[in-house]
Amino acid sequence: MTRKLYERVGKQDDHRPSPFSWRARYALAHKGLEIDEHVPIKFHDKETIAFSGQGLVPILVDGAKTVHDSWAIATYLEDSYPDKPSLFGGSQAFAHFMNGWADTVLMPAIFPLVVVDLHANIAEDDKAYFRTTREKRFGRTIESFAADRPAFEANLAKVLAPLRAQLKAYPYVSGAEPAYADYAVFSTFQFARCASPTPVLAADDSLRDWTDRISALFGGLGASCLRLEEADAA
Amino acid sequence: MTRKLYERVGKQDDHRPSPFSWRARYALAHKGLEIDEHVPIKFHDKETIAFSGQGLVPILVDGAKTVHDSWAIATYLEDSYPDKPSLFGGSQAFAHFMNGWADTVLMPAIFPLVVVDLHANIAEDDKAYFRTTREKRFGRTIESFAADRPAFEANLAKVLAPLRAQLKAYPYVSGAEPAYADYAVFSTFQFARCASPTPVLAADDSLRDWTDRISALFGGLGASCLRLEEADAA
Repeated sequence: MTRKLYERVGKQDDHRPSPFSWRARYALAHKGLEIDEHVPIKFHDKETIAFSGQGLVPILVDGAKTVHDSWAIATYLEDSYPDKPSLFGGSQAFAHFMNGWADTVLMPAIFPLVVVDLHANIAEDDKAYFRTTREKRFGRTIESFAADRPAFEANLAKVLAPLRAQLKAYPYVSGAEPAYADYAVFSTFQFARCASPTPVLAADDSLRDWTDRISALFGGLGASCLRLEEADAA
Repeated sequence: MTRKLYERVGKQDDHRPSPFSWRARYALAHKGLEIDEHVPIKFHDKETIAFSGQGLVPILVDGAKTVHDSWAIATYLEDSYPDKPSLFGGSQAFAHFMNGWADTVLMPAIFPLVVVDLHANIAEDDKAYFRTTREKRFGRTIESFAADRPAFEANLAKVLAPLRAQLKAYPYVSGAEPAYADYAVFSTFQFARCASPTPVLAADDSLRDWTDRISALFGGLGASCLRLEEADAA
């Protein structure tokens, strides 16, 4: 059986800023499932994934089964591989809440801090598509949208309060051991790390200890940020 | 064995706006444990609870054991009554995160919407203490702090996004069944309901379906907002 993961790429095939791609990678790694083929997909490239009946990545092709959407991939893996370590650490609802929190709270807080660099770090032939779609959404230029950095930094500091409280009480968001609730949140920081050379967390930020520990899991999966072959070799 | 709960009261002994008091009540009810005596404590009344070695309520006296802090009460009950239904629905870490989210995100979003009414609805001999301590914290009058209601309403709408996403996917925050993650969040809405006659959620808000279902649990425990005897009679 062949297992393929179709993933968004940035400036080159081994640059993967998409948080949803990282969620699928961590879910597969947590389950101990190898990926036989990574298929790089650019923003404007819709034809290669038309077979899935929709236009978004990641898409997992697991033998005869095609699954798109990172959350659907996680629940598919949990249901299909019940003998492998559980992705949800006792509560799928917890993983779902953190996934939603990452998407509706953390990502909007981080996105403005990295979007200008993200645009600079995607493939040249993706830039027009990215700029047009995002500027339509923002109602102004990317640069104007992201201009008030101190306000966005203050907002991020506020948004991180419940995450900090959690990681003071437990080694991982999920509790004693890492699970999908961690990966959902980590993937958003990983997005920032792959999108921009300017860290969204200061070097001495206590959350760094947790992001470092998640990054180091599964042979240093998170360190394969720009160079896919590093993870493959790990 | 006698079980006593020392709780903050508002304008009269059967008026309990404190979210922390509601958390302790729901935790005890979920565990099926009766409360033999509710001891009302006003804001300025520190002498009655000096025996606990600190100045905050709720305090649970469970036979020979004294526990203060609503989270400590929850974990104490879970550990001491393992044969009763679990409070944490498979993940204590989940309950802890939602508890922290309620305290660091939801409460700061709701508090400005109800604080003027809360002050109006506490005991006359508590008002000076309440006003002085809160105005010291805000750096201005309660009324000035709460003045920009449209901005606070807009902020609350934003803050509720991950809760709405969760309750679209599951009947309860905790998943298929209610547990402490629900009570921690519900208690904050219950605080608002007991503090102010102006609802923070519109009558047709979809979250009302969930708050109504939590309120109806344990013989309508949440409906005992102003009238303690209603819950006792239920």
